Amino acid sequence: MRQARAGKAPGQIGRWRGAGYNPAMHARFYLPGVPAQPGLLVELPDDESAHLAQVLRARPGDIVSIFDGAGREFTARVERPSRRGAQATLLAQVTPRAERLVHLTLAQAVLKGEGFDQVVRDATMAGASAIVPIVAVQAAVAPAVAARGRRIDRWRRIAVSSAKQCGRASLPDIGEPMALARWLDQDRADARMLLAEPAAGVTPVPLNTIRNLPVPHSVSLLAGPEGGWTDAEVELATGRGVVPLTLGALTLRADAAGLVAMAALFALWDVW
Amino acid sequence: MRQARAGKAPGQIGRWRGAGYNPAMHARFYLPGVPAQPGLLVELPDDESAHLAQVLRARPGDIVSIFDGAGREFTARVERPSRRGAQATLLAQVTPRAERLVHLTLAQAVLKGEGFDQVVRDATMAGASAIVPIVAVQAAVAPAVAARGRRIDRWRRIAVSSAKQCGRASLPDIGEPMALARWLDQDRADARMLLAEPAAGVTPVPLNTIRNLPVPHSVSLLAGPEGGWTDAEVELATGRGVVPLTLGALTLRADAAGLVAMAALFALWDVW
Repeated sequence: MRQARAGKAPGQIGRWRGAGYNPAMHARFYLPGVPAQPGLLVELPDDESAHLAQVLRARPGDIVSIFDGAGREFTARVERPSRRGAQATLLAQVTPRAERLVHLTLAQAVLKGEGFDQVVRDATMAGASAIVPIVAVQAAVAPAVAARGRRIDRWRRIAVSSAKQCGRASLPDIGEPMALARWLDQDRADARMLLAEPAAGVTPVPLNTIRNLPVPHSVSLLAGPEGGWTDAEVELATGRGVVPLTLGALTLRADAAGLVAMAALFALWDVW
Repeated sequence: MRQARAGKAPGQIGRWRGAGYNPAMHARFYLPGVPAQPGLLVELPDDESAHLAQVLRARPGDIVSIFDGAGREFTARVERPSRRGAQATLLAQVTPRAERLVHLTLAQAVLKGEGFDQVVRDATMAGASAIVPIVAVQAAVAPAVAARGRRIDRWRRIAVSSAKQCGRASLPDIGEPMALARWLDQDRADARMLLAEPAAGVTPVPLNTIRNLPVPHSVSLLAGPEGGWTDAEVELATGRGVVPLTLGALTLRADAAGLVAMAALFALWDVW
């Protein structure tokens, strides 16, 4: 049984023992709404319980981390490592990993297949504050399907899983799929950018132009579907003050462009 | 039959007609060793022929791009859109998309499953000059399997496919899998960096330190396996002048860390 703990994945039980607090060193579990009361006995949701008891084979006394998805994190001691209703005692509230100083909302056109799953996983990992699925005109997935909210639960589970792995104590907010025009009306970010191909009827600003602008407090980044934004969509966005941005000559895959842009922007703004 | 051309993918035949030269606008085909002789009738390899005739349903007279993987690109006119031995006439050599001013070699530990496929696809797209599969100690794939060269052909096909999509006329060099020590002996890059977790026994340099250093002509970037580099591997590398680098507090997935680091470095160096 103990052999199962010999792996090398972050959060493995073998790393828990004797280590000071470091989120990468503790297996982490998600418990929304956990009260900040050290000493409190808490019960984990079933999927988290299964992860603790079946996958990691935790034992009573093991030290784990519990985070609430809203920026709070605790060390906790496993009391009952059960597959359902696992229980742990909160020990101490700890300083969570810092969130990015720039709040970034990734407004990503819904992609076909597992493309959007990957976007959610990567954007969570890279530190997005929010992810908005946009129903784009040229989406490879039918607009009616993209607009359906059914996949949101799946995306939220993926975000939880990604946050558990990467050490974040905050989950990105994942909204209902919506049309571009509606999102443009709602969005209140200081800076808004849209990833565009140079061929799209406008001349997008190259990334290095961003270097000379002040670092925004909040930014929204629009990333298109497999087929790109239509000229009408680009016009709609730029007409409302969204800056068209190009990452250069190379055409990036739709499910990677947002991640690449986030990495480049965070590097330029020095908020890694 | 023509209905099949109504899709929105880059390179679709619908976009060929009437457009000036723009690699993203032409369907692109790979023909290694193509001679720079406008007027020459050339024959495409079978997989490229199938792509031209079956997937894109090209017709005689359609204009396409042909690149040699070594930086040369031509416009060409389809003569015989056959599934095997498709023929085209070279029209003119064109200026290919610019390669990055910094030559980056991604030395990536072999990953399990399709992880390395994704690394090859993304690194090609982001502009890596070379990709070296490293056989790491803590790889989730057995060292004997990782060292086998059998998957190189697959990785090279993925690089071709990625170059076709993203508009590059140069293919990254993909080497045989090799052990870290051997690669460290061979590598001659101006700057060498290794992505490391802060916990790995050394204190890695944060990304923003790179900001103040001169832009190298060539750089090698070492990215670890799922389980991370061992302390011995980090010591081996740093002992030979490799700079340990961290992208910040968040732990990135092994198959995305290299891409994120490339995007951040290219942004810092202004070579997007």
